[in-house]
Amino acid sequence: MSLVVVGSVAYDGVQTPHGRRERMLGGACTYVALAASYFTPVGIVAVVGEDFDPADWKFLRERGIDLAGLERAPGKTFFWSGVYSEDMNERTTLRTELNVFADFRPRLPAPYRSRPYLFLGNIQPELQRQVQAQMAAPRLVGGDTMNYWIENRREALLEALRGWSVLLVNDSEARLLSGERNLRRAAEAIRRLGPSVVVIKRGEHGALLFSDGGPFLAPAYLLEEVRDPTGAGDCFAGGFFGYLAERGLDPAQGPLEAGELRRAVIYGSVLGSFCCEQFGVDRLRTLTRAEIDARFREFKALTEF
Amino acid sequence: MSLVVVGSVAYDGVQTPHGRRERMLGGACTYVALAASYFTPVGIVAVVGEDFDPADWKFLRERGIDLAGLERAPGKTFFWSGVYSEDMNERTTLRTELNVFADFRPRLPAPYRSRPYLFLGNIQPELQRQVQAQMAAPRLVGGDTMNYWIENRREALLEALRGWSVLLVNDSEARLLSGERNLRRAAEAIRRLGPSVVVIKRGEHGALLFSDGGPFLAPAYLLEEVRDPTGAGDCFAGGFFGYLAERGLDPAQGPLEAGELRRAVIYGSVLGSFCCEQFGVDRLRTLTRAEIDARFREFKALTEF
Repeated sequence: MSLVVVGSVAYDGVQTPHGRRERMLGGACTYVALAASYFTPVGIVAVVGEDFDPADWKFLRERGIDLAGLERAPGKTFFWSGVYSEDMNERTTLRTELNVFADFRPRLPAPYRSRPYLFLGNIQPELQRQVQAQMAAPRLVGGDTMNYWIENRREALLEALRGWSVLLVNDSEARLLSGERNLRRAAEAIRRLGPSVVVIKRGEHGALLFSDGGPFLAPAYLLEEVRDPTGAGDCFAGGFFGYLAERGLDPAQGPLEAGELRRAVIYGSVLGSFCCEQFGVDRLRTLTRAEIDARFREFKALTEF
Repeated sequence: MSLVVVGSVAYDGVQTPHGRRERMLGGACTYVALAASYFTPVGIVAVVGEDFDPADWKFLRERGIDLAGLERAPGKTFFWSGVYSEDMNERTTLRTELNVFADFRPRLPAPYRSRPYLFLGNIQPELQRQVQAQMAAPRLVGGDTMNYWIENRREALLEALRGWSVLLVNDSEARLLSGERNLRRAAEAIRRLGPSVVVIKRGEHGALLFSDGGPFLAPAYLLEEVRDPTGAGDCFAGGFFGYLAERGLDPAQGPLEAGELRRAVIYGSVLGSFCCEQFGVDRLRTLTRAEIDARFREFKALTEF
């Protein structure tokens, strides 16, 4: 069932040990929406500048993404560039030019407002709340955030979180938000802030799911070659949340089924793993649902005992 | 079936965010033997000094460990001390006093020589080979090593490895030994050096198994509290290899069964997780096989999807 995704659409400059791209399509909203589009109809809410390439517009539309909420504003598109370390476990930001994203005031097109699923990408928590307030009565709201908001907009973030069912974070965000070092305790503390489902994304070390159904430990897929990890966490989020939307999960009907949540985590890992195989969104230009389902089955074979 | 374990028996001084011990029983051989003793009869080959505490002797014997190969030499027992960082992901060595361990020349008691399983703890590769040469015809030989030997005794280590079926290493050792950054490729390169089974231990991030049965990805157990990670990797090795010995696995009878190897990895993770719950070997003073099997089942529940 239909999903609305809010966040950044950007151009990225990236350098990894496998190569370099001066300018490629990126942004959290882009990756989340592309990954989710394999599971459910997706509409995005984002802003781009006058330099946004018609070919990128076309690519998103061809993936079936509804662009009614993609505003085009005077100025340039958000630009970020960075360099990954030799082992790709660290990255250094070279440039961040917010451009039109600096004044982003997300406005939902009327048809979006009655849609049942909402994913709030990493933007200012006040904006996340404003977006949610524009929705009629979404079934399931999820989102992510980052250290910067946890440290500098803590109260606003806590208020936003109270309205969410699902939060996706990484290790350090979970620790910073909860004040707990141990991840099990950190997740339980975060669940008391609102989201009944907490997913801790650990990149090449897998993911942890905490819900009423107890914890679930998922290893990461083992790639032969990681070319560019940019966007992998967002693809995880898109695969995870897209699968929940596809299944029509509804917390008003009782606790989210643990098995469905676990499968959603694996689909998230699958999408994250494909993302790393090529630079930027390139792997998603050719990826098929059949390949996704095949890797899901492979995951089962790799982890059963 | 009976297992011989060779390595260090030591005293450790340890400081973690949860406390401090000035001097506690430790050493790789100790941890491996204690963990394996839940699965199979174990005999150790090691050396201690005149200061070795009769209470420790008694504790090992009460766990059913055969001490015929535990030599007592003039001088003091190997002593190591270190401090863990706040997040316990790093440790700094404060003191290393080899003492009687500096002149350790392992000699196997006659009854050990016909035993079917041999685990070569992390000692000089030349000594590992000498130990193996003293055995009649062990069914299964496994061991571990460390960066120091990989860098400084590479040829001797490669020669030793040719005679092993199982190697346990961590991420950085796997990369250093193989020259491959990617762990999947690193493991395949190491398998070409001799051991048909390679286990990459990743601490709180789980373990990877590579064998003829393909890769297996195991997450780590999620503890509420890690008090002291000292010895966890050795307990993993003891649980893993002890289980293989219990099951009587024999590579001469055909490739090691993939399911058995996977269960061995989970038993390794279970023993490693228990080890972290208390300082040093303390958790192993009260741990029972029933608790081990219960956590094995819990592992299944935590990872199934």
